[in-house]
Amino acid sequence: MSEYLVKSLAQLKALLQERNLASLKGLIAEAHPVDIAEFIKMLSIDESLIVVKQIEQPKAATVLTELDKELRSKILSELSDEEVAYQISEMVTDDATDTVSLLSDEIRPKIISLIEDKQHAKGIVELLRFGEDTAGGLMAKELVSVKEGWSVGKSMQEIKKQAENVHKIYSIYVVDKEDKLKGRVPLKDILINPEKTLIKDISILDIKHVSVHEKSEEVAGFMQKYDLESIPVTDELGRLVGRITIDDVIDIIKEEAEKDYQMAAGISTDIEYNTKLIKTIRARLPWLLVGTCGGLFAAYLIGGFTSIVESYPIMLIFIPLLQATGGNVGVQASAIVVQAIARNELKGRILKRLSGEMLLGLINGITISGIAIVISYFFFDITKKELIVIGLTIIAVIINSGIIGTIIPFFLNKKSIDPAIATGPFITTGADILGILTYFIIAKMLLIG
Amino acid sequence: MSEYLVKSLAQLKALLQERNLASLKGLIAEAHPVDIAEFIKMLSIDESLIVVKQIEQPKAATVLTELDKELRSKILSELSDEEVAYQISEMVTDDATDTVSLLSDEIRPKIISLIEDKQHAKGIVELLRFGEDTAGGLMAKELVSVKEGWSVGKSMQEIKKQAENVHKIYSIYVVDKEDKLKGRVPLKDILINPEKTLIKDISILDIKHVSVHEKSEEVAGFMQKYDLESIPVTDELGRLVGRITIDDVIDIIKEEAEKDYQMAAGISTDIEYNTKLIKTIRARLPWLLVGTCGGLFAAYLIGGFTSIVESYPIMLIFIPLLQATGGNVGVQASAIVVQAIARNELKGRILKRLSGEMLLGLINGITISGIAIVISYFFFDITKKELIVIGLTIIAVIINSGIIGTIIPFFLNKKSIDPAIATGPFITTGADILGILTYFIIAKMLLIG
Repeated sequence: MSEYLVKSLAQLKALLQERNLASLKGLIAEAHPVDIAEFIKMLSIDESLIVVKQIEQPKAATVLTELDKELRSKILSELSDEEVAYQISEMVTDDATDTVSLLSDEIRPKIISLIEDKQHAKGIVELLRFGEDTAGGLMAKELVSVKEGWSVGKSMQEIKKQAENVHKIYSIYVVDKEDKLKGRVPLKDILINPEKTLIKDISILDIKHVSVHEKSEEVAGFMQKYDLESIPVTDELGRLVGRITIDDVIDIIKEEAEKDYQMAAGISTDIEYNTKLIKTIRARLPWLLVGTCGGLFAAYLIGGFTSIVESYPIMLIFIPLLQATGGNVGVQASAIVVQAIARNELKGRILKRLSGEMLLGLINGITISGIAIVISYFFFDITKKELIVIGLTIIAVIINSGIIGTIIPFFLNKKSIDPAIATGPFITTGADILGILTYFIIAKMLLIG
Repeated sequence: MSEYLVKSLAQLKALLQERNLASLKGLIAEAHPVDIAEFIKMLSIDESLIVVKQIEQPKAATVLTELDKELRSKILSELSDEEVAYQISEMVTDDATDTVSLLSDEIRPKIISLIEDKQHAKGIVELLRFGEDTAGGLMAKELVSVKEGWSVGKSMQEIKKQAENVHKIYSIYVVDKEDKLKGRVPLKDILINPEKTLIKDISILDIKHVSVHEKSEEVAGFMQKYDLESIPVTDELGRLVGRITIDDVIDIIKEEAEKDYQMAAGISTDIEYNTKLIKTIRARLPWLLVGTCGGLFAAYLIGGFTSIVESYPIMLIFIPLLQATGGNVGVQASAIVVQAIARNELKGRILKRLSGEMLLGLINGITISGIAIVISYFFFDITKKELIVIGLTIIAVIINSGIIGTIIPFFLNKKSIDPAIATGPFITTGADILGILTYFIIAKMLLIG
């Protein structure tokens, strides 16, 4: 939090304590809605309500949309039905719909009926039909469109009218008589062309668009790939029904990148700082059990090599070293493949990647093996033969773990399973077991023969 | 890659083989620049050059900016100086500057002098001064601005002129006589206000802006926080010198999220699918050495508890289980804290987070411990006392690892060190050593007394 925000928050709290509503109102009037939302997150629910009531419209609606759903619900539940309806009527349709969907089924129809602008209410009802993770669920109804048969002069008049309800214009979409999307016309071209020019003569046709049923992640990837600030959304008949703007998808882009990390860390759903305990257990415990089962299986394996364990007990103390090394290499290799898949850079060149990983494994393996042998020679009571076993195993484990770290996510991706699932506990557990097996096989060959 | 792209690529390759340049030109004319760039990545350098020469301007310049720097350099090196200058003159100043900076120091002045539009060349020279990771390095010179003293009518004329050079208008900035940034005026308001209205009467003052020296990551975070599609950039005198648009920072936002994951995976720089071997070794080997040293230290520790190891050899085979469990918990806990820090949600509530993590550790620990005891009881030749040691150690290890996974990134963040450094090998190594110590201390207390 910046110094400015810390100072303002202290001021705000002091004013709340003094119940100095006039000064409070002044302070809030100067603050940015995003900052006000940040302040509210730090306050008690009672204090929040006092603050919310001091914010003028349409700023109050913007502040509400900036709050997370839990807090927004809490505040809404303390307002009267009329106040809730009023807040919602000041929001853009996509935010309004998200907010309406926070209301209970019983109260929802009543709130919607209290919205004065019937067009707005109709838009919300329409958007409520769509799944949250589809283009329909992301889009807003507010947009500027012109008919292909209109002149530039008439379009200008219409744009002025429509622009009143649209926060940011982005593109001006072109539709036909049946509202089917035909293309777009840059505002710039409307400004610089003579009044009589027909829209269809200056339209850009075949523009990128998405269907209402397209998945949010696809929309986000698409907008990012083609550098689009906004994209029109069409229904089954090809009619223009809404638009999605870049600020709606930035969070999705970020979440996608964060999700890979969470999977790699062995967390299956989006756990935030203050997620409830039971949800956290469900997201974390299953991944831990993977490691537990792997560990028990490793114990079983080690128990099976009694001849080595009994004759060469010193070999056991190096297992943590092999396990740590194998796990680290596996996680590195899989992270590279998973990020390449996420960036769409994989393009089937698995063999090249695999040979690169093996060469790297050989170099890293020899280096680490050399270091481990030298240190072990000086610090442990160990024979030359035992040192050779450990050295060779380290090299083998690094190469093996690199291979499984590369192949498994690649294979999962081929089978349309999210490869990120294989980057955390699964990879380290696999590397552990393979490492222990390799160790004892090499030991058996060289020590017992 | 979508079906459409795969098909087009096959077609393109066939046309290249036939040297059918006319049809090739037709195919390329229909394709989106982003898609053409994707095709080029799949071709040999000779084929790429043939394709690049078939693209009409300004599309060719856009395609070039979509290519990664390595490939772009290669293609530029095959073009004549005049062709390079021409491509650069068709790019927006920020992309043009990035491209010019790919040229060698000897050739750079010559290429810049060949750019016909002297204003454009001057803009590039100005932008070259700024570091790549600063607002100055991100911004473009192209923008639309009006003077505060102008009327709406005069502004409209000026906007039309300026708009010719600007791909997307976003905001119209308002400056004073000395070009100092005063605010912005929505295009909408220029459209709906009478011609004689003065700009200063309809301006929005005190708008968010950044200094040319601001760090890219800060700019990205700022634009994301306040939902800005573009932000004006000012120099030391407060003069408007450029603007940064959201598409310039989306990659930074994504990279920030990806970077945390890479650090957690034990990779220190941005390794891509085809990064050179030596760079990859430098990015990966040091992290592996952390694990190696940890493993050797663990071996040393285990060797120190000879009394237990000799009397209770079975205890050794459970070390991989403890290690896997501790590592997994540590990675989970640290990932949550690191992501909370990245999202700016931490707000110093470390004690609450820590107690939550400990409670969770207790529940997960008892569950996993119970499962491990039951399985071990049936599958291993083990005494009750030994089972109790293992069960208690699992619980202790899970709680301990959760605590260090929470505290270490929090502490590093306090010390202004990137906390992500502590999410991979460092955490698992720390958890390993603490786990083994705990194990033998509990074993010594319960088994040997």
